[in-house]
Amino acid sequence: MIYWLDLFGTAVFAVSGALAAGRKNLDLFGVLVLAVVTAIGGGTLRDLTLGATPVFWVTDPVYLWLASAAGLVTIYLARHDFLQRRFLPIADALGLATFCVIGAERALSLGVNPSIAVLMGVMTGVFGGMIRDVLCGEVPLVLRRELYATAALLGATVTVVLALVLPGIALATWAGLLSALALRLAAIRWNLSLPVFVHHSRH
Amino acid sequence: MIYWLDLFGTAVFAVSGALAAGRKNLDLFGVLVLAVVTAIGGGTLRDLTLGATPVFWVTDPVYLWLASAAGLVTIYLARHDFLQRRFLPIADALGLATFCVIGAERALSLGVNPSIAVLMGVMTGVFGGMIRDVLCGEVPLVLRRELYATAALLGATVTVVLALVLPGIALATWAGLLSALALRLAAIRWNLSLPVFVHHSRH
Amino acid sequence: MIYWLDLFGTAVFAVSGALAAGRKNLDLFGVLVLAVVTAIGGGTLRDLTLGATPVFWVTDPVYLWLASAAGLVTIYLARHDFLQRRFLPIADALGLATFCVIGAERALSLGVNPSIAVLMGVMTGVFGGMIRDVLCGEVPLVLRRELYATAALLGATVTVVLALVLPGIALATWAGLLSALALRLAAIRWNLSLPVFVHHSRH
Repeated sequence: MIYWLDLFGTAVFAVSGALAAGRKNLDLFGVLVLAVVTAIGGGTLRDLTLGATPVFWVTDPVYLWLASAAGLVTIYLARHDFLQRRFLPIADALGLATFCVIGAERALSLGVNPSIAVLMGVMTGVFGGMIRDVLCGEVPLVLRRELYATAALLGATVTVVLALVLPGIALATWAGLLSALALRLAAIRWNLSLPVFVHHSRH
Repeated sequence: MIYWLDLFGTAVFAVSGALAAGRKNLDLFGVLVLAVVTAIGGGTLRDLTLGATPVFWVTDPVYLWLASAAGLVTIYLARHDFLQRRFLPIADALGLATFCVIGAERALSLGVNPSIAVLMGVMTGVFGGMIRDVLCGEVPLVLRRELYATAALLGATVTVVLALVLPGIALATWAGLLSALALRLAAIRWNLSLPVFVHHSRH
Repeated sequence: MIYWLDLFGTAVFAVSGALAAGRKNLDLFGVLVLAVVTAIGGGTLRDLTLGATPVFWVTDPVYLWLASAAGLVTIYLARHDFLQRRFLPIADALGLATFCVIGAERALSLGVNPSIAVLMGVMTGVFGGMIRDVLCGEVPLVLRRELYATAALLGATVTVVLALVLPGIALATWAGLLSALALRLAAIRWNLSLPVFVHHSRH
């Protein structure tokens, strides 16, 4: 079940990468690259820093194929504004929730410090989108947007805390996933956001 | 022979990095950094994701010295427009062809899935140039340009397929190299390109 | 002592990351991310390329906590222009000097080639700031600025050379640290800089 959610999240993130490529008028290869880095960038950095190499998509290439296919399909899907406006944000929230939980659990299974496991969850959820934006020449949206990374932080924290105090991982997984999803959907629905740090340097 | 082509490709990529630095008015250190990351960036990411660490230039520092030297020489070379206009694109095509083949073979030698080996070939060929452009504050050219990455994809695919069906690696190497080179040179000569995915979001 | 200087450098680099986030009006999470990547980015790339994984902050999470705390404190500190104008550049020079020496020594302790150890020192010192600038959508300052990376290069070189010819590491450490610090402070004081490579391509 979690594996399927993971694949679902991969596809959804790939769609968001491909759409960003479309906004920048990239060519077919650009669409593929943006789709793939958005989908697997977070998990890649997680595995690299944890030393869990080769990284997950080298071991299980289905992630790459899925992300590429989702990127290509997006070129057609992009014409349906309904899908983008309604479906994509919700699917993206589900992908984010899944990724932050999976990232945290993968780190925990490697025996790292709990605070590092939380960080790995957040990184898995948001880093792909950050690379996507950097490749598009923009300041990453996640550094500016309404409670996106914060939802990943909540989900990863809930997962890690429950995994440490409860026997078994199932409850921690679902509680983490649902809490991240709930916060992200609430942020979308009511436009919640973190305070902005405005600082005009005189340098 | 392949080792010498690899060094040649490294030097050529370093030149293209240094020229990009010149267009951005970077200082001497900036020229060196751009030269080096363009030359070794692709192979570095390949080795990191494959878990083949320490990465290749830590084991064999000649790559670093060569890229640095090529970057410095470029400051003088840059005055010769003829070199840039005529020689550089062709040399760059040869570097690309070499890198995609070497990347694919290095991945194969580590026993990964064939589709991953193809990806590693493409990554070795194009990722250095992507970092170069990101450091210069631009959307990577390779995501927009005429059949650049596609040539790497062709070369890596030919190499991997032939390496799997034929005994010995020599024929796979040369066929991969020549097919990538031919497609890239054809793309330069006749301005061939992939279709662009134009998508104006209403968000 | 070196460990404390390392923590000091981490905090100072985090402050510079958070200030950059403030100039870009990022939200609270953006401030944290910029603070953390600036503080630990260089050491992370060093450890990744050396294959010394999991990277240092996975093993010792105090770096992450310190960088996050320094980033948050900065939001208040930012109001004191005196701190920024006078204290920060000098503290940053000390951080840079410490990082380049620590990076070089860590590489040496893993038995790499001396030229690679020097590069690792420079990378540890400057790469965090480069990621900071890329995330802010700017061409990295370090590629353009007055003798910043060059100070790291001097410090790392002095450290590596002395570590190879002298018994014990203490003298190499302090000589490297002081030489990098001296050059950086001199560059700030007298506005010293490297020549710029200006090249207007006709492409």
